[in-house]
Amino acid sequence: MLITPGSLLATIDTPEDLRKLDKSRLPQVADELRQFIIDDVSVYGGHFGASLGVVELTVALHYVFNTPDDQLVWDVGHQAYGHKILTGRREKFHTNRFYKGLSGFPKRKESEYDSFGVGHSSTSISAALGMAVASQLQGNTSRNHIAVIGDGALTAGEAFEGMNHAGATDSNLLIVLNDNCMSIDPNVGALREYLTDITTSQTYNKVKDEIWNLLGKMDKLGKTAQELVSQVQSGIKSSLLEQSNLFESLHLRYFGPIDGHDIDHLVSVLDDMKHIPGPKLLHVLTVKGKGYGPAEKDQTKWHAPGLFDKVTGVIQKKIYDTPQPPKYQDVFGNTLVELAEQNARIVGVTPAMPSGSSMNIMMKAMPTRAFDVGIAEQHAVTFSAGMATQGEVVFCNIYSTFMQRAYDQVIHDVCIQELPVIFCLDRAGFAGADGPTHHGAYDLAYMRCIPNMIVAAPMNEQELRNMMFTAQSDEVQQGKQAFTIRYPRGEGVMPNWRTPLEKQVIGQGRMISDGEDVAILTIGHIGNYAVQATEMLAKEGIRPAHFDMRYVKPLDETLLHQIFSRFDRVVTVEDGCVMGGFGSAVLEFMANNDYMARVKRLGIPDAVIEHGEQIELHHECGFDPQGIADAVRELLFTGRAVTV
Amino acid sequence: MLITPGSLLATIDTPEDLRKLDKSRLPQVADELRQFIIDDVSVYGGHFGASLGVVELTVALHYVFNTPDDQLVWDVGHQAYGHKILTGRREKFHTNRFYKGLSGFPKRKESEYDSFGVGHSSTSISAALGMAVASQLQGNTSRNHIAVIGDGALTAGEAFEGMNHAGATDSNLLIVLNDNCMSIDPNVGALREYLTDITTSQTYNKVKDEIWNLLGKMDKLGKTAQELVSQVQSGIKSSLLEQSNLFESLHLRYFGPIDGHDIDHLVSVLDDMKHIPGPKLLHVLTVKGKGYGPAEKDQTKWHAPGLFDKVTGVIQKKIYDTPQPPKYQDVFGNTLVELAEQNARIVGVTPAMPSGSSMNIMMKAMPTRAFDVGIAEQHAVTFSAGMATQGEVVFCNIYSTFMQRAYDQVIHDVCIQELPVIFCLDRAGFAGADGPTHHGAYDLAYMRCIPNMIVAAPMNEQELRNMMFTAQSDEVQQGKQAFTIRYPRGEGVMPNWRTPLEKQVIGQGRMISDGEDVAILTIGHIGNYAVQATEMLAKEGIRPAHFDMRYVKPLDETLLHQIFSRFDRVVTVEDGCVMGGFGSAVLEFMANNDYMARVKRLGIPDAVIEHGEQIELHHECGFDPQGIADAVRELLFTGRAVTV
Repeated sequence: MLITPGSLLATIDTPEDLRKLDKSRLPQVADELRQFIIDDVSVYGGHFGASLGVVELTVALHYVFNTPDDQLVWDVGHQAYGHKILTGRREKFHTNRFYKGLSGFPKRKESEYDSFGVGHSSTSISAALGMAVASQLQGNTSRNHIAVIGDGALTAGEAFEGMNHAGATDSNLLIVLNDNCMSIDPNVGALREYLTDITTSQTYNKVKDEIWNLLGKMDKLGKTAQELVSQVQSGIKSSLLEQSNLFESLHLRYFGPIDGHDIDHLVSVLDDMKHIPGPKLLHVLTVKGKGYGPAEKDQTKWHAPGLFDKVTGVIQKKIYDTPQPPKYQDVFGNTLVELAEQNARIVGVTPAMPSGSSMNIMMKAMPTRAFDVGIAEQHAVTFSAGMATQGEVVFCNIYSTFMQRAYDQVIHDVCIQELPVIFCLDRAGFAGADGPTHHGAYDLAYMRCIPNMIVAAPMNEQELRNMMFTAQSDEVQQGKQAFTIRYPRGEGVMPNWRTPLEKQVIGQGRMISDGEDVAILTIGHIGNYAVQATEMLAKEGIRPAHFDMRYVKPLDETLLHQIFSRFDRVVTVEDGCVMGGFGSAVLEFMANNDYMARVKRLGIPDAVIEHGEQIELHHECGFDPQGIADAVRELLFTGRAVTV
Repeated sequence: MLITPGSLLATIDTPEDLRKLDKSRLPQVADELRQFIIDDVSVYGGHFGASLGVVELTVALHYVFNTPDDQLVWDVGHQAYGHKILTGRREKFHTNRFYKGLSGFPKRKESEYDSFGVGHSSTSISAALGMAVASQLQGNTSRNHIAVIGDGALTAGEAFEGMNHAGATDSNLLIVLNDNCMSIDPNVGALREYLTDITTSQTYNKVKDEIWNLLGKMDKLGKTAQELVSQVQSGIKSSLLEQSNLFESLHLRYFGPIDGHDIDHLVSVLDDMKHIPGPKLLHVLTVKGKGYGPAEKDQTKWHAPGLFDKVTGVIQKKIYDTPQPPKYQDVFGNTLVELAEQNARIVGVTPAMPSGSSMNIMMKAMPTRAFDVGIAEQHAVTFSAGMATQGEVVFCNIYSTFMQRAYDQVIHDVCIQELPVIFCLDRAGFAGADGPTHHGAYDLAYMRCIPNMIVAAPMNEQELRNMMFTAQSDEVQQGKQAFTIRYPRGEGVMPNWRTPLEKQVIGQGRMISDGEDVAILTIGHIGNYAVQATEMLAKEGIRPAHFDMRYVKPLDETLLHQIFSRFDRVVTVEDGCVMGGFGSAVLEFMANNDYMARVKRLGIPDAVIEHGEQIELHHECGFDPQGIADAVRELLFTGRAVTV
């Protein structure tokens, strides 16, 4: 079903078309663009509130600036649907986030209007500054470089690093601060409070206005007073306008705050700003979900609501006849509270993902013991390390892909110091529709090479619970090792998941089913595919043995000795990169122990895998049930000679 | 030779002893402490200027606060020599940075006074906040938590993330901003300019003083004016004192700036601050190298000067009869300029390591084309990516260990986007005396698992030059891959290193010497050890073949097919972690191609390796020339059966 655009929007295939319109027609463009997004997302799904919030800003930016020659970088990119629709992708937009369809984020390969690929937050200032500096070097003085960044994204250190550099240059950089008080959950931290302060005029604007007013009234005073006034005027002015603002402190000229839904004003302000040289910041106030009542009201829920009835605002829920398995994240969230009730030293940390990680369950149940630290993965890990030095038992939950942001802190602040911080990596493996920026593809490889690190992955809900129980046990907490548990986005396999908690032996794997000729070694949830593959193969009379190794590090060497003594053909399966991952760990064991066997390693190949449903991507990479069965058959029946 | 402490310092074995002294004696303690550091470092080496700059601060902190119960975190730790000497380590201090001796950085294992291990910058606020929050949770209201952080370290994003969180808490956290205008090189960026502004009173202090003065004079005015004044007074006050300061914007109470060498004043201010609740920041001005003339004068040179004559201030230089090989970093720095003279699109980026990476050579020769972006690895990489989108050829030089800070940006902003940024990783392998926080142990493992990434390591100067030449060639720059070149700290092997530039075939290895029975496969500089091992073995009649693989990714599969067709015993050697590194890549090739061979992988084991000379650590890990020769002998002569 193609979404029908409004009559004016239908005429806009590129921003060039937009720029031909009279300014008076822009509100209609904005209205039709907003409606198009509502129409599309309600039936095709995707991120919602963020794009609604910047409809006017999107139209104004493309109207004022000469895209794609002017470089426009959208931070994170959740908000770029309007941008995509205005830049030649309207008719393909129904494919957004579907396998082989448009990406849910700006992407350089997709369009020349997508000047920089995004997904993770807080990169836009650095990227746009790089472009601006390059333009200077190339003698291009007319090109504009614009970073649109949210107040949530501004809490991450990289944004600060970018501002610190930008403020010391004379580059033509415009930072548009899209201030809607939200990350996915409400934004937190001192900076958020500061932005509220200067916006609500409690101090900054009030004082600014008052002083300007008073300086006006001073005309009525005597000469002595007037002289004093003129003496102090420049002082006050420089103090208030140059120094009294955090951004001005960093030598970024600050403008605003202005209403981000007043398109007329936006256009005239942006037009003015084109002519202001040097790095500058425009503070724009927007409402996430703007123009769609339910989304304005519950902004977290409507960040990415799934499909919904656009008239009633009722979000579709699937109805099942039988109990369904829970999401792994909810098993995490509920089990954490269950453990924390028993162990007073347990605390929880999330960098701006309370609802995404289900840490919000603990935040609600034990508000003093669970911390949302903002989009700040680096800080989250070192903060966790600091608490661990004082004997707190810390569950630090970070999406696998975002843990890449805190890699140094895991090595330097946790593992080198032998602190038993527990890392729970959600969204490990393929993230699905979010695509390559969000796939948790590398964690097994980048975590297992760190000393003093245990790396585990549960095959189901019970395993996750037992791994969490084990990680917080005295044995681990009095040891010297951090403990990583990684699990995928989505549901497990156990409708009755509230199993009794049992301590695991660190590094111990288990046999799922015995067999002959070929051994399948799996790690994590993907092991359930091997169960299916085994069932498929059984129908052909092929009986591989299947082992759930549970731990990538330490490996169960006892079990591996048994396996390699019995089998000379082995398939390893992981939903992580095959370069350096679990399969490679098995090869290392073989080499260390002089075992020879034919080993086929299945996993994510050395390539950027695009977006799609998880199962579509698993199939593409050859480790869905069919792919596993094929690998077993290949090992059994292809006659490639073993070269010794 | 033990260093003789001054008479008063000799009586101080712990801060407890210090705290028994009358305040009037503290200047003498500081003088003797400074002299002890000068005496020691002049003959034993180490970091110098940073510790001299905080002598008074160190004494004052331990005098005022109840360490070790109060938690004192030194950011980076270069400046903690005085702290170590006052906390029970004076008599061992001559072992500082030597193999098996004291660590050059605070380290939890070494002393209960080292509350947090440091080395990389900008972790102290996050760590101390974690401690402060833990104390709150544990009901401890008396414990103090102090982070001492330099203005250089404050430019890194993690420090900002920590402040953003801290300012939204009521935790008992004191941030001492040790402002000396320096990283190792002079500190850069907008924040540095801001700190100078508020310190030199050009705006902040001047305006503050002027307005206070004027408000005083206003008494002489008429009633109308006085009323206006009182109306605006509170406004101005809140504006100036609460909002006009960057730190106050983040809800950190700001105090200072004060003279960090006035110990009497320091003690009384710190004493006051103990009683101020909540998060707060004290701005302390210090001089790096304070009290030692030459060090005050050339602060970069005296950051870690090596041995010197403390009387004359002459730094020892080794004199050689013959030309010596250059440092790899200087080959990088000079070759970069040589290439940039030919290729106008080449630019250089360093995060605060101009002298450490020798990027200062280009910064001097081509100041508009080389960028020091401050301690900001994340920004450095995304900024590089931004420039690369505009066709610039970017050499981004980051120490291997610090690249851990920008891991996400390498994946997300460079490789996923197929941008041909060139990463030069200095200090790869063992850093030497700096120890485990600084070892570049993991780079081969964490880089090679990223798609669209070439990973190379030069065996000598000529190889480094040719790899740089190749990386900037049109073939690579018009391709889709980033290019990593990693090389160690210290000297190469070629006194005549200015060899003609030759393009390499990407991924092509080379045979160094042919042989029989065993093949030695090496990557990078460590290959020179294999040359020595081969010579040693030749005397015993053993002739292994030696291959310098040059590229970990892509591997030279043609060469590997030849090798595994000829050899069934292989030794791999790398100065990186054996888990997931080069050797594992070779095992993956074998598995993919059904080769069977006995492979012994030498490299950094799965453990935290402490500090020492590089060769001492190589020996400890068994991959010095002797270790390589042993591995060859073991493969040849131990009869372990190959299990097929």
